[in-house]
Amino acid sequence: MKLAALREEVLEANLEVVRRGLVLYTFGNASGIDRREGLVVIKPSGVSYEGMKISDLVIVDLEGRVVEGDLKPSSDLPTHLVLYRAFSEIGAIVHTHSRAATSWAQAQREIPCLGTTHADYFPGSVPVTETLSPEEIASDYELNTGHVIVRRFAKLDPLHTPAVLVAGHAPFCWAKSAAEAAHIAVVLEEIAAMALNALSINPDAAPLARPLHDKHFFRKHGAKAYYGQAKPSGEK
Amino acid sequence: MKLAALREEVLEANLEVVRRGLVLYTFGNASGIDRREGLVVIKPSGVSYEGMKISDLVIVDLEGRVVEGDLKPSSDLPTHLVLYRAFSEIGAIVHTHSRAATSWAQAQREIPCLGTTHADYFPGSVPVTETLSPEEIASDYELNTGHVIVRRFAKLDPLHTPAVLVAGHAPFCWAKSAAEAAHIAVVLEEIAAMALNALSINPDAAPLARPLHDKHFFRKHGAKAYYGQAKPSGEK
Amino acid sequence: MKLAALREEVLEANLEVVRRGLVLYTFGNASGIDRREGLVVIKPSGVSYEGMKISDLVIVDLEGRVVEGDLKPSSDLPTHLVLYRAFSEIGAIVHTHSRAATSWAQAQREIPCLGTTHADYFPGSVPVTETLSPEEIASDYELNTGHVIVRRFAKLDPLHTPAVLVAGHAPFCWAKSAAEAAHIAVVLEEIAAMALNALSINPDAAPLARPLHDKHFFRKHGAKAYYGQAKPSGEK
Amino acid sequence: MKLAALREEVLEANLEVVRRGLVLYTFGNASGIDRREGLVVIKPSGVSYEGMKISDLVIVDLEGRVVEGDLKPSSDLPTHLVLYRAFSEIGAIVHTHSRAATSWAQAQREIPCLGTTHADYFPGSVPVTETLSPEEIASDYELNTGHVIVRRFAKLDPLHTPAVLVAGHAPFCWAKSAAEAAHIAVVLEEIAAMALNALSINPDAAPLARPLHDKHFFRKHGAKAYYGQAKPSGEK
Repeated sequence: MKLAALREEVLEANLEVVRRGLVLYTFGNASGIDRREGLVVIKPSGVSYEGMKISDLVIVDLEGRVVEGDLKPSSDLPTHLVLYRAFSEIGAIVHTHSRAATSWAQAQREIPCLGTTHADYFPGSVPVTETLSPEEIASDYELNTGHVIVRRFAKLDPLHTPAVLVAGHAPFCWAKSAAEAAHIAVVLEEIAAMALNALSINPDAAPLARPLHDKHFFRKHGAKAYYGQAKPSGEK
Repeated sequence: MKLAALREEVLEANLEVVRRGLVLYTFGNASGIDRREGLVVIKPSGVSYEGMKISDLVIVDLEGRVVEGDLKPSSDLPTHLVLYRAFSEIGAIVHTHSRAATSWAQAQREIPCLGTTHADYFPGSVPVTETLSPEEIASDYELNTGHVIVRRFAKLDPLHTPAVLVAGHAPFCWAKSAAEAAHIAVVLEEIAAMALNALSINPDAAPLARPLHDKHFFRKHGAKAYYGQAKPSGEK
Repeated sequence: MKLAALREEVLEANLEVVRRGLVLYTFGNASGIDRREGLVVIKPSGVSYEGMKISDLVIVDLEGRVVEGDLKPSSDLPTHLVLYRAFSEIGAIVHTHSRAATSWAQAQREIPCLGTTHADYFPGSVPVTETLSPEEIASDYELNTGHVIVRRFAKLDPLHTPAVLVAGHAPFCWAKSAAEAAHIAVVLEEIAAMALNALSINPDAAPLARPLHDKHFFRKHGAKAYYGQAKPSGEK
Repeated sequence: MKLAALREEVLEANLEVVRRGLVLYTFGNASGIDRREGLVVIKPSGVSYEGMKISDLVIVDLEGRVVEGDLKPSSDLPTHLVLYRAFSEIGAIVHTHSRAATSWAQAQREIPCLGTTHADYFPGSVPVTETLSPEEIASDYELNTGHVIVRRFAKLDPLHTPAVLVAGHAPFCWAKSAAEAAHIAVVLEEIAAMALNALSINPDAAPLARPLHDKHFFRKHGAKAYYGQAKPSGEK
């Protein structure tokens, strides 16, 4: 059954970001969507990762109604749902408060692409959202967090730019699968730490020139990709 | 018996901050109070955490007289006792020299709230005490360390602001239980590290706007809290 | 058989940089050359290190034609081959995206020699290449990455200077053996981290004076070496 | 037998700094002295810590002549011997290239005392030596490294100030016992890392006021010490 596999994959993504040191206590959450069923599997709110079981995950529909599970879903669920509705090709979301990426979100600075590690994953800077208005915070805050992300992506392809920094908050990452979204969260943390270091070494460090940036990005993405063992049959 | 459980909890809090990498050698100490009995359980002074047993903990009354235990209590005991007397609702104290938080204490700078991770735990900056006067240092230094903390909290609610940086020294954290106080110590270290990074990225990074700060703080505290699995029945 | 031993050594070098924390996921690659056979053993492209077996390594000739192995070789193979052809005395290459060294590559700054740890391994700064031209990027990018490294070494002895930072990319390290090349990659990361710290403490920190630099370098290299247990019989 | 115990203690100190993450590969070395016998036990030169046995340690007299052991002693042996001769009360020396402390040595800056963690161990800044002259480097370099340290201590008590940063090189730490010297090396690394952070947060951070500095130092040292379980019977 598709949903059973999704639950396992979402649990594994939740645990992977813990193992990689991106998560303290109950911070962060991962979810995945079964688009045919219109169901989302998400981590419960404020529950310890240690000993977390598949049955602790909560299954909700796209309106956020709990379909299965005894626990309350993550309080960030409304943000996830907005993203699933707006970004029709993504299959999973991973949200962490990982140290370096969150530091950039707090600095409210886009992470400039200073090297090929970054260019392998993002076609440009890692974007930062606008701050929310007092009204957006006062009512439906988590929903509006989703909206401010979607607005930031008006001219961006979410499958090409698989993460955003919510200003003053932390990163949200996504991908076709939960395993890939967790992978993005880990790589983003590394990119963020390197950019912080590089600007400490040279505050005038220039972003990668466009040709080199494109070379690396399209070595791994799109029809002409040739990195890894997979055949270059379009976007993987 | 209440005191037996408290000893276990205090031992566990002492060990938790070691496991989390907040403590070198014998640095730091955790204590807890049984308010009905008027007894405090605290780590012994300068004893290795490795192999520490419940019977190594020292039980003292609120005047600091040893009631049970063969070892000398932590030399910071007078600081703890002042806090227990002044902050009547706290149940435990954790003191560490964790790297990033101590760096802020040494810089004698309050940790500004630059992100929601901070806002989830503190309603404002993490406060710094004044420095002690030469007279306060010369006699009853550890007692006066307690007093300088209490003076800093003249207009602060210690249950809402669960930590302080003693200028030139290090953080003291507290909460209703020892497990929560250890949790605060770990989170404070993370907040301190992120703020250091964020200001390195953007020296002009602005504190979180008040509405967003309040939103996060009160999502987890007070009558309208809705984070986690607990029902929002007042302060948890 | 020589090639069998080389494969084991190359596998071990690939795993060593992972164990040392220099590698995330499938980043980086190590190779070794059997100069008598004219064959190069290299990591496959985009394959997980976990569970990597000797048979996963790819054997190619100096033109890059696969001689043995079912997987595609690392996409950086052309860079390795250029280096093996130009630097006739090296026996192995290790490429990582280790955090601090990559930060210097992104900052496009040579790592100045600020201390004896650096001087023990490098006779001068750790060099940075020029950036590639758009034409060099557009066709045969990985080959031209090799050429830009070789051009940087016009006046440098690659056995004395066992690493380079490719501008905007990351380090390539080499040595007579794969174990030594991995060792260089680990030490370079440490040197890079220390230099970053030292310049943060003192932006005007001066490079080591030449006599001290030479003293340390030649204590470990050349005919008069006296560090370690080996007899000083020329370059080890 | 006294010497047998010393060898075990020296081996353990060598391994302790490795376990604490202060040492890469064969960097660093620890030694201890049996003052009655006039014999020094020291780590061999360039030998891996993994699997190091007591019999690998080298025993030399105060002139550096090997009395027992098949391996060459550490190339830093002459530095150790100068220190043992000049500082008659020390019983052990630990030399590392630990990251943060070495960064300060490279920056050629004394580590100012910004907090009580530092004041608990040092009565002032952590001193830096002068640089060696070209002549001192050209002949008897390691011996002269010892001399430049001793000159720096003309007005300092080596038992009160248990470490020095050799300019452009790295720290040397010492104490009455090898275990204590290793402890100092670990604490120095922490102090160095905190001071680096604190100055990043506040470049104008002021050194601890003298009364607070003295309070902490003499809480643990001298006739009136009251930290830990030991009775305050003079210098422990």
